[in-house]
This record gives sequence, structure tokens and C-alpha cells, in this order.
Amino acid sequence: MADVLKYFFAPKSVCVIGASATAGKPGNVVIKNIWDLGFDGKVYLVNPRGGQIEGYKVYKSVEELPENIDQAVVTLPASLAPETVRALGKKGVKAIVLAASGFSEVDQVGEDLQYELIEAVKVSGARVLGPNTTGHVSVPSKYTSSFFPLGKIPRGSVSYITQTGNFCGISLRHIMSAENYGIARSCGLGNKVDIDECDLLEFLGRDKETKSIFLYLESIKNPKRFLRVARRVSSQKPVFLLKGGASDAGAAAAVAHTGSLAADGRVVDGAIDQSGVTRLNKYSHLFQLAKALDKQSLPRGNRVSFLSPSGAFTVCLTDICRSLDVEVPRLEERTTKRLQKYAPPFIRMRNPVDIFGSVGLVGYEKAYGDALDAVLSDRNIDAAVVIMMLTSETGIPKMDFLVDVSEKYPSKPVYVTFMGQHEHNVAAKEYLEPRGIPCYMQVEEPFEVLSILAKCRMHMRGL
Amino acid sequence: MADVLKYFFAPKSVCVIGASATAGKPGNVVIKNIWDLGFDGKVYLVNPRGGQIEGYKVYKSVEELPENIDQAVVTLPASLAPETVRALGKKGVKAIVLAASGFSEVDQVGEDLQYELIEAVKVSGARVLGPNTTGHVSVPSKYTSSFFPLGKIPRGSVSYITQTGNFCGISLRHIMSAENYGIARSCGLGNKVDIDECDLLEFLGRDKETKSIFLYLESIKNPKRFLRVARRVSSQKPVFLLKGGASDAGAAAAVAHTGSLAADGRVVDGAIDQSGVTRLNKYSHLFQLAKALDKQSLPRGNRVSFLSPSGAFTVCLTDICRSLDVEVPRLEERTTKRLQKYAPPFIRMRNPVDIFGSVGLVGYEKAYGDALDAVLSDRNIDAAVVIMMLTSETGIPKMDFLVDVSEKYPSKPVYVTFMGQHEHNVAAKEYLEPRGIPCYMQVEEPFEVLSILAKCRMHMRGL
Repeated sequence: MADVLKYFFAPKSVCVIGASATAGKPGNVVIKNIWDLGFDGKVYLVNPRGGQIEGYKVYKSVEELPENIDQAVVTLPASLAPETVRALGKKGVKAIVLAASGFSEVDQVGEDLQYELIEAVKVSGARVLGPNTTGHVSVPSKYTSSFFPLGKIPRGSVSYITQTGNFCGISLRHIMSAENYGIARSCGLGNKVDIDECDLLEFLGRDKETKSIFLYLESIKNPKRFLRVARRVSSQKPVFLLKGGASDAGAAAAVAHTGSLAADGRVVDGAIDQSGVTRLNKYSHLFQLAKALDKQSLPRGNRVSFLSPSGAFTVCLTDICRSLDVEVPRLEERTTKRLQKYAPPFIRMRNPVDIFGSVGLVGYEKAYGDALDAVLSDRNIDAAVVIMMLTSETGIPKMDFLVDVSEKYPSKPVYVTFMGQHEHNVAAKEYLEPRGIPCYMQVEEPFEVLSILAKCRMHMRGL
Repeated sequence: MADVLKYFFAPKSVCVIGASATAGKPGNVVIKNIWDLGFDGKVYLVNPRGGQIEGYKVYKSVEELPENIDQAVVTLPASLAPETVRALGKKGVKAIVLAASGFSEVDQVGEDLQYELIEAVKVSGARVLGPNTTGHVSVPSKYTSSFFPLGKIPRGSVSYITQTGNFCGISLRHIMSAENYGIARSCGLGNKVDIDECDLLEFLGRDKETKSIFLYLESIKNPKRFLRVARRVSSQKPVFLLKGGASDAGAAAAVAHTGSLAADGRVVDGAIDQSGVTRLNKYSHLFQLAKALDKQSLPRGNRVSFLSPSGAFTVCLTDICRSLDVEVPRLEERTTKRLQKYAPPFIRMRNPVDIFGSVGLVGYEKAYGDALDAVLSDRNIDAAVVIMMLTSETGIPKMDFLVDVSEKYPSKPVYVTFMGQHEHNVAAKEYLEPRGIPCYMQVEEPFEVLSILAKCRMHMRGL
């Protein structure tokens, strides 16, 4: 299976069926996306009108194409899907992406069409992604089948398998514009007539480019196989799952979205619970956790230290940690001694670290920098959260010291959050994230992230 | 009591004890803040050096001041607090704000000093706010005693009572720079040697400028009185409380912050539970809920409709609503008929409203505008969440229609959230919030806000 999937994720030659010269049409955007990413394989275009598109020859039919093209992206209407799949199979195409919607997610006619498509796939000998998908993305191969305009996608270590087109469309654009982390592979499953979450999970489990895997699923096709595959993969890499339709009402909405049936509810829940996969409940976590894992490592445990410039935060965020099952442990004696060195004598340094007095005495960089180094070197601590309080009056430090200290402790993640003047916070995020320090705009978020990552580590250990 | 508090919140004359000509010193920032806000009462300055500050006469001592000044702001060190309070009392000053820290929150010497201060307050006849407070803000009176540089504070209907200086300091600056809503009053309690949360809650309960009240407390001085006062006030206005130190570990941190003792833990919890006050657990909620209440009304119940441009959101956010006890009810038949008018025939319109098909057919403004009007006019719906998916390719609508439709239904709040290109989302927030539509950058947040507001409404009804 993994061998076949390489024709999706690292094709040497692709054809676009339904290629169009009209800007904005899917058959045109796909081509532009492929060129934008700098794909260096061969690209063949097919449209019954023939002629040329941007100087490239257009074949009039699948029959005219050369043999043994690795992959086809089909942007034709749903009704043409079965015959196109059969024709592509005859030509020896190994991987087919079907963009069209209008199948079982819509009505009875679409459902009948989907059955016909499934039969066509069987005789074709090709593997099929979709239909009803916006495609997939493979950044290391500079390739995408997405028909949503994407531009340059930053390369990273996070991969997505999603039963919504969003992660090769608008959600991916959201990530690229709002966050600063990179993607390895992303794949929209659509209606899963052939390739399903297990096929992809198996592939990504072995994929060297992929360090963590995020799934958004509205159904699980084969819970038994999922349990087997997910167990194996999640013992090696962090795997997270947001299961859409977890509530009855949500499940009803899922039928309208991807035609997913919720009948398997309990079986699916059981499979997930035993699979070593860490379950999410918020869509936003699909970004917030990914950001934490692209460049920083998974924490070894749930023991956090945080540097707080506000007494109220030392109190409230300790409460939050407690409710999230994140520990705020005692520091080693040598750590508190070191922290005390720069602190006003009337502040007794401990965890959480009340840092603003030290900032007043020795400045931001020395106070925060030395304290961060101190808590990261502490054997009781698995991760640190730095809360910056930036205002024009209190001054804006150069942020390099955070990057430098964090790099000294590669196994202990550092996250940054803020309180203060919004424009300074935004600027700090823009500076720090491309340098590997994830920033969170709400003060509770890094603790929620840590809580989930610590659970993930436990699942990976089989606890 | 309320009569005395008017000397804090609507003084006709104030004196600044410890006034300074040096920019950045608290005794200088206080004066500038008062001038910046446009206070139109009399301001007297006191400093043993005498002379002038920015053209204003400086009195050398409290004794030299005229009689019957309403309020004094004292920025002297802690050790001078008791004698200053006595002197101000003799002069007939009715309200005193004590900025200095270094009392019971610090050490035994500070604790002794605090006892001495309490005795001085008793003999002075004045009421005292603090010590260890950054002061208070009263926007309708264009007045503040804060010594943190604030500039122009937007006027609104939300009031804060907080046992941290932040809400007259950096957290207030955060609100002013990151969110778009206004404040009526904000008051930092500090160590509460005299004025406490109950005094202020009583005052704000009667205050016409205050429509909703947010408390951050690390201790409750008199739980019995709190229960009595909070019950009365919360039957009239939404009252929210974040109790810092809810966990044992958090309570330990609170001792270091404001010297609050956690010994009253259970009694306090009991008082809060019966008080009609709605409890919060996140610091960020102190902003997110305030934003929802400054210009929009409290929803009548928990029944939401939401407009989603993504099938995945209809699924995931329905799940979220279920977990938050927010209902996503069936729409009236006339509503679904109206929604179907602009929708592609293969999408069956219902709640949540899958809107992107309609956008494709009739454009953003007609599709979203008519759908929002339809669901707000539905008798089954208490509030609406609009999810915008903004990208350059799909186009950016003018946002006025959201403001117009929302204004037609003043009793049904409308919140907006986003997915798409970050810069467009930020621009939309900047446009919509000053026009009364609260925007949330994470897609789950408006539902969390609604969930808490619906609980608040239940508490107010005594359920």
C-alpha cells in the first residue's frame, strides 16, 4: 500500500483532466498551484477542446495521453467520474484524485453515482482519493492536487489527514496567514470510495518527513483496522484526532457534510480509546498543537514552570494548570537560589516565577533570560511558559535571548504568551514563531496545549 | 456607603500626595492620567519641595491644603502611609487611594505596618482604597487615580472590581489595544484595609453607568455580606466572578500576591454558589464576556443558530455546543423556507446553516445578510454566531449589512468569528467591533461566551 501512495505524494508525472485556461476555474487553479510550488515532474493537460494553455500542449482525451503517468487530478463534474476513472486505469495511471462533489453527501442520485464509481475504481486497478475532496499537498515533493489557490506552502514536519477539504483549502490558507509553522503532507479524504484514513495513517507512520500526525474524521471506515494501524503509528509519533460528530447532533450534521454514517458510534469510540491516539475536542487545537510540535519537541511530562509578570497570573494560571492536570512542581533548591539572585529581597522566588520585580532590577533580557535558563535546567521541569508583558513604557526587549535559551534545551519545549499592548504582542509573535518559539495570544492556551501534549506522551508510553 | 463612594468615583476636587515633576514617576503619571482623561474638577499637588509642576502650585504639606477636598491619591512609600492618612483625615478628605505596596503581602514588617494603617484609617474618618492598588478609573467622571500611563480610556458600560492592579494598569491597556469595548468604572482593591468588594459591588449595583460587573477576587472579606449584596445586585445586572486561588496550589500563590488567606475556602465557595453570581475560570473571559456585553444584550436563553461556510464547522461546532450546554435547535418552517430561497437545491437548509452554497449563488451580503435576518427573526433562536471565511479570492464583502441586521434585533446578540486569511479577519474585527459586533479570533470562543451568558441569565432568574 505504502508503495502505491508514493504515486500520490511523490509523483514523477501527473495529468490534469479538465484543465482550463480560465483563471479561477478549478482546472486552472490546480495547474497554477503545481507550478507555484515548483513541482519538477512532468505535467500533462487534458481538455476536449485541445489547443494550448499557457504554452503547454492540451491533449483532447485521456486516450491520447502517454502510458504510465503516475497520477491524475480530475476536475470534471461528478457524472463523468466513473468513465474517467476507467479510462485512466486503462492508461496505467496509478493514483487518481477526484475533486468533484455531488455524490452520496447530496442525494439519492449522487449515492447511485457513488456506487457506480466504486465499481469503476475496482476494475481500473488505480487507487482513488475522494471524491468530494479539495485534494492533497506534499510539500517535500513540491506538489499539490488542490484546486484552492494556495501559493507557497511553508515546509514543516506536521501532516494532516482530514475528512474535510479545508486542510488543502481555506484552513491551510488560515494556517499560512495566521500562524508560522510548516506542513509536510496534508490530505483531504472526501467521501473515501477507496483510500481511507488507515491507508494514509500507515503511509505517514513510515514517512520520514512527518513527525506528528493530525486527523480530522467524521467517520472511521474500518474501526478494527484503525485500532491496529493507529496503535502501531502512535507508538512512534504523536497522533491526534478530532472526531467530528461526537455528539448526536454533530453526527446528524456530519451526514449532510460528507454523508458519514454515525451508526458505528460506540465501536468507533472504543477503537479510538484503545488506539494510543490523543483525542481533541476543538478545531483550533488542530493549529495550536501543530504549532507546538513543528519545531519544538513533545514534552517528557506534565511538569511546567512559568514566568509571570503579574501576581494575578501566578494565581489564576496555577488554578488553570490544576484543572488541566498540568503540574506546577517545586523547583530544585539550586534553581530558587539562582532565581533569587536577580530578585528584590522581598519577593520569595518559587514556581510559578514572579518575574516583574527582577525585570525592574536588571531588565527584561537578564531577568527573563536567566530565569528561563534556570527553570529549564531544573530536573523537576518538563516545559516552560514565558508570559511577556509588553508596553511602550516598560520597554520592548530584543527577543533573541528567548530563542537562544530555548535552543539550549531541545527536549524541553518553551511557549510564549502575552499581556499588554496588542501591537507589541503581535510583533513579538511575528519575530519568535519563525525562529521556532510558538506564541499564543490568549494566556491560557499554552497550558491547554501542554496538557494535551502531556497526555499524548502518556498514550505513547501505553499508560 | 454609596454616598461616600461618590467621592472616589465622581470627585469635585482631588489632591495628589507625592506629586512629582519627574516623568515616569507614579506621582507624575497620576497627574498626567487625570489631565489626559480631561478631569474638570480641582487638582491640588503636594510635595515637601514645594515649587511648581507644569505651572501648577505645589503645596509643601497636607496641612497647607485647603479644607474639604473630596479625594487624595497618595503615592508615598508604605512607611509614610499611616501618618498621611491621619493628616488627610484631619483636613476633611473623605476618600483616600493608597498606591504603595510593601504591607502584609510582603513580610512581617509590612504586616505590622498594615495594622498601624488600619488604626490610622479608623481615626481619620476617611474611607481608604488599597494599599497595594494601582488605583481606580471612572470614565464618566473623566477621572482616574491610576499611576500606570493609560491615555484616553473608551467609555462603556462594563465595570471591574479586581484584587489585582492590572485592571487599572496593564490589563486595561491590553483591553484598550486588543479589544474594542468601553469601561465605566474599574477599581483595584489591593489589600483591602478598608473598602472591600462588597462596598464596591453595592455601589456599582446602583450605578446607572454600569450595566455589567466583572470581579476578580483572591479573597472575600465577609462571605455573609457578599452573599447578601451579590444576590441583590445580580438579580438586576449580570455579575461575573473569577475567584483566583480556587485550587490549593493557586491559593498558595495568592498569599504571595495579595496576602490573601485561603482559610475561608469552603465558606467562600458556598457563598458564591448561592449568590446569583456567574463563576468564570479563565482570565481571558474577563475580556471576552465584557466585549459581548458592552454593546450587545444578554441573550434570553441558550438557543443558538450559526451560519457556517464550512461543512466541518457545522459538525465540530455542533459538538462544541453540545458539550457547552448550548442548544442548536430546529428552525421554524418559515425560516428554513426562507433560507432555501438563496441556497443551491442540493443543500437542505437547517440549523446550523451551511451558507457557502448560497454565497456562491448570490454573494456574501445577500446570502449572509438574509440568512442572519431569517435566523434572528426565528422564535426558536436567542442568539446568532456568524462565521466568515474571508480570502482575497472568494472576495471581501462590505461588513455594514452585519451591523444593520444586528441592530434590527436588539434583544438577540450577534457574534462574529472567522476562518481564512488572517489580515482580512483582523480588518473585519477592527471594522465591526467599534460598530457594536463583538468578534472572536478562535472559532469556538463565541460559543463559550454564549454558554456562560446563558448560565448567567439562568442565575439572574434564580434557577
